[in-house]
Amino acid sequence: MHFTSEQRLDDGVLEREFTLGEVPGILWTPEAASAPVSPILLGPPPVGLRKAYPRLVGRARHAAADGFATATIELPGNGDRPRLPGTEQAVADLRRAMAAGEPVSDEIIDALVLPLVDKAVPEWRTALDALLSLPEIGGPVGYSGGVISIGTRLAVVEPRISAAVLFAGSFIPRVIFEEARQVTVPLHVLLQWDDEGNDRQAALDLFHAFGSREKTLHANMGGHTGVPQHAGEAAGRFLARHLR
Amino acid sequence: MHFTSEQRLDDGVLEREFTLGEVPGILWTPEAASAPVSPILLGPPPVGLRKAYPRLVGRARHAAADGFATATIELPGNGDRPRLPGTEQAVADLRRAMAAGEPVSDEIIDALVLPLVDKAVPEWRTALDALLSLPEIGGPVGYSGGVISIGTRLAVVEPRISAAVLFAGSFIPRVIFEEARQVTVPLHVLLQWDDEGNDRQAALDLFHAFGSREKTLHANMGGHTGVPQHAGEAAGRFLARHLR
Repeated sequence: MHFTSEQRLDDGVLEREFTLGEVPGILWTPEAASAPVSPILLGPPPVGLRKAYPRLVGRARHAAADGFATATIELPGNGDRPRLPGTEQAVADLRRAMAAGEPVSDEIIDALVLPLVDKAVPEWRTALDALLSLPEIGGPVGYSGGVISIGTRLAVVEPRISAAVLFAGSFIPRVIFEEARQVTVPLHVLLQWDDEGNDRQAALDLFHAFGSREKTLHANMGGHTGVPQHAGEAAGRFLARHLR
Repeated sequence: MHFTSEQRLDDGVLEREFTLGEVPGILWTPEAASAPVSPILLGPPPVGLRKAYPRLVGRARHAAADGFATATIELPGNGDRPRLPGTEQAVADLRRAMAAGEPVSDEIIDALVLPLVDKAVPEWRTALDALLSLPEIGGPVGYSGGVISIGTRLAVVEPRISAAVLFAGSFIPRVIFEEARQVTVPLHVLLQWDDEGNDRQAALDLFHAFGSREKTLHANMGGHTGVPQHAGEAAGRFLARHLR
């Protein structure tokens, strides 16, 4: 983990950009902390960190106020990272299907999402290794993220994650429904009921599939980026309850 | 409103039993309040106030700590009140259908629920008149209740209600889905995902039908009475946000 820049935000949060091999990322830590603080991995939406930054830094500030560090890394194929092989074809197929008003086939969803999941999950685990090697970070780990298939697999394969906030609203490959049954950590799932680009029934089916004994679904009105403030605060309380 | 008994609970809550005509009820008020406090109408589950008391007083204590009064009244046909005509036949039909593993018909649901709604809703409005005539009570009114069809109609016909917490988990007559479209106040709907006696899809359909621009669904694991503590707290925060 190589820090490339550092700035103090006005509310006592230290923001550091870093690279981890070829992967850029951002770490936010509360400056006032005297003991190591638990990290929350902020999985970004697949729009590139630059575009997602305002939303991410908002969540980072809230988490810092609760006494947590947060970190995010650029997803494969996003931002300045090289495109993933095959996904440009999948995106073209997706657009064609949607323009024609056809249902999006499982083949298109697999081709679109699985290469991203396959590459992103090991990168998040490497990032977690690096974060936990920092003296200022330690304790139970949370995940809060934007591509629900990545969060689902990470919750299965990464035993250091203690609780996860997941955002419904992206296409879900069939295999991820199977993996969801193996998730056992407490889950807090956010669903935007009117999300135009979202298959609401698929989100409800995935929520049902999760194997976790403690799981909660918070559905709210509005589109993809319209998560109400109280819903964000509830997600923060969920993480605070499980990471403290 | 005729008070019949009065006791002080250990956390500064005054509990008064009352009758309103033939209808018994309970009023809880925070003793420390110096100005009139907003009332929350606590719709009981249809099991009689005596059996529901432990759950109701728990919610009353939390509401009092937030600075609210709460009141509940015995539902028609519950507790010591006379049975509603026709509902014993409907209960028998319901049991027979369920024992036979048959779907519960709309006719049974209508016969079971609509007489209760028709009689209960005007009683709640009369209770609200009486409550708001007390000098210690005033301000925006909340509803938080156990029979979702009663809460739905009350939210439509009673303009003094500013926000409602509704509990999914009882049979819903077809006409209530129509009335739901006319609800406009902020709603917070609790759904126990594994509730054996509950039609989950009907609950999701009703949530979808509500006309409110602000509505949130909180689904949690567990059976009918297993609402987790954090879910109760979230419902309390919803009411506090809208009644203050």
